[in-house]
Amino acid sequence: MEQLIITGATRLLALLGDPISAVRSPQLFNRLFSEQRRDAVCVPLHVPAEEFAVVFAGLKAIRNLDGVLVTMPHKQAALNLVDDLDDTARQVGAVSIARRERDNRWTGAIFDGWGCVLGMRWEGIDPAGRRVLLVGAGGAGSAIAFAVAQAGARVLTICDEAASKGRQLADSVGKAAGSCDTGVGPPDPKGYDIVINATPAGMRPGDPMPIDPEQLDDGAAVVDIITEPDPTPLCAAARKRGCRVQSGEAMHEGQAVYAARFLGWTYWTTGRPRIALPGPSPSIPLS
Amino acid sequence: MEQLIITGATRLLALLGDPISAVRSPQLFNRLFSEQRRDAVCVPLHVPAEEFAVVFAGLKAIRNLDGVLVTMPHKQAALNLVDDLDDTARQVGAVSIARRERDNRWTGAIFDGWGCVLGMRWEGIDPAGRRVLLVGAGGAGSAIAFAVAQAGARVLTICDEAASKGRQLADSVGKAAGSCDTGVGPPDPKGYDIVINATPAGMRPGDPMPIDPEQLDDGAAVVDIITEPDPTPLCAAARKRGCRVQSGEAMHEGQAVYAARFLGWTYWTTGRPRIALPGPSPSIPLS
Repeated sequence: MEQLIITGATRLLALLGDPISAVRSPQLFNRLFSEQRRDAVCVPLHVPAEEFAVVFAGLKAIRNLDGVLVTMPHKQAALNLVDDLDDTARQVGAVSIARRERDNRWTGAIFDGWGCVLGMRWEGIDPAGRRVLLVGAGGAGSAIAFAVAQAGARVLTICDEAASKGRQLADSVGKAAGSCDTGVGPPDPKGYDIVINATPAGMRPGDPMPIDPEQLDDGAAVVDIITEPDPTPLCAAARKRGCRVQSGEAMHEGQAVYAARFLGWTYWTTGRPRIALPGPSPSIPLS
Repeated sequence: MEQLIITGATRLLALLGDPISAVRSPQLFNRLFSEQRRDAVCVPLHVPAEEFAVVFAGLKAIRNLDGVLVTMPHKQAALNLVDDLDDTARQVGAVSIARRERDNRWTGAIFDGWGCVLGMRWEGIDPAGRRVLLVGAGGAGSAIAFAVAQAGARVLTICDEAASKGRQLADSVGKAAGSCDTGVGPPDPKGYDIVINATPAGMRPGDPMPIDPEQLDDGAAVVDIITEPDPTPLCAAARKRGCRVQSGEAMHEGQAVYAARFLGWTYWTTGRPRIALPGPSPSIPLS
């Protein structure tokens, strides 16, 4: 691997979050830059929610900063601070990446959902024509719901402890992807080809399972958005039952691929198959 | 050398300037961090003068940012944006580094002058008891004037094309370092033990010499603050006459040593002798 050397000519990509210590995007992007011999660096910034606006305003004025990655708890706040929204951000109602346009306006997008779908395809799990159960209708769950439905899922059932939240998301997704039979239901995996956990359950020892893995259909595939531990308890249990599984790492790498394309960069990392990116093709930046 | 790896736990040091592409501090600090196995990174930010205040306000709110380095054209602007001033900044009227205190207040300092004196000592050029001619009373020249006088120079003569600027600086330095015979004079090196160029003359081909090297006393030492070209025309001519010379690189490394101490870090780089740092010992940060 190339040595990362930062000079006055290096381009910047900032990542804002709170907490910040466990983020993995800097390592992922800096590996990508190194592989591509791109003179750029991804730098994590620890920014509490109440400081997000003042920090974002400052970042926009830094001329060698080409983009901003946004993670918890800033994805909704970023929606109101960018100048323009990509379709992904408008649908989901959140922003996880913003880029500087040639006229110094900033466009926001979110690729959590399409990154998950790309990760699934890498692992041979294609939602097209399948019955999908999605547990969790929070930020990541919302993005995944839109992407999975638009990627051609035949059925999408959403379950969330807050029933109205699940219902609302199902309605929005149904409108955006009319060919997908979208609704809400209990976290029961019976009858589903693909089960996606988009809740934090599994990050801490002793967390309850988001679904009962004993109820998984034979041949069902399980997707977990959690990156730590790897495998998650859910993935480990599903694998024991002979299911195909996808860890959060694939989704994370998938997001990075979309993010790099959005920023106008070469976007393939080594170690992943180069397949046509599913989903929308946002305009590339003009600069 | 250790590989620079940036994670969510990495501490940040930002460098603000315009232009930014030719700065050398990121390489210098990142080498220092690598040698010390410190999980920190220095990142250059391209910030135009009119954006400095909004960017600085944003940076102050980033919790994993421990310090800010300031270069052209922001050194005066920074004076008014920090909360407290170190004696060095108060004397010189400029800030080239600011650090976050435990209570999130920011203290500004400037080590251009003491960095130059440390660089001189590394090269065996000690201003104590010597007659010093300083050409240039701008930002760097002002900092060097205070440091050289406080480091014990017997005589300090300042020359600047703007006579009143030289006179004003000589008066201020005379008050701060009473034992130094401070005044203004022409750029004539005759009778001086040490001649310091603190003007940009020599950066571009065809620049006039700041002094006539033919008039240097035998055994005089010449210090140039310019880092490119290395050696500068002045240093090359002085060396030809058998003079001891110091390039801008030594001053630059000297500044980095003071900056690292100010930030509470281990501050020696390999390749330079470890000597007691001349000048004031600012309080170390409490955090």
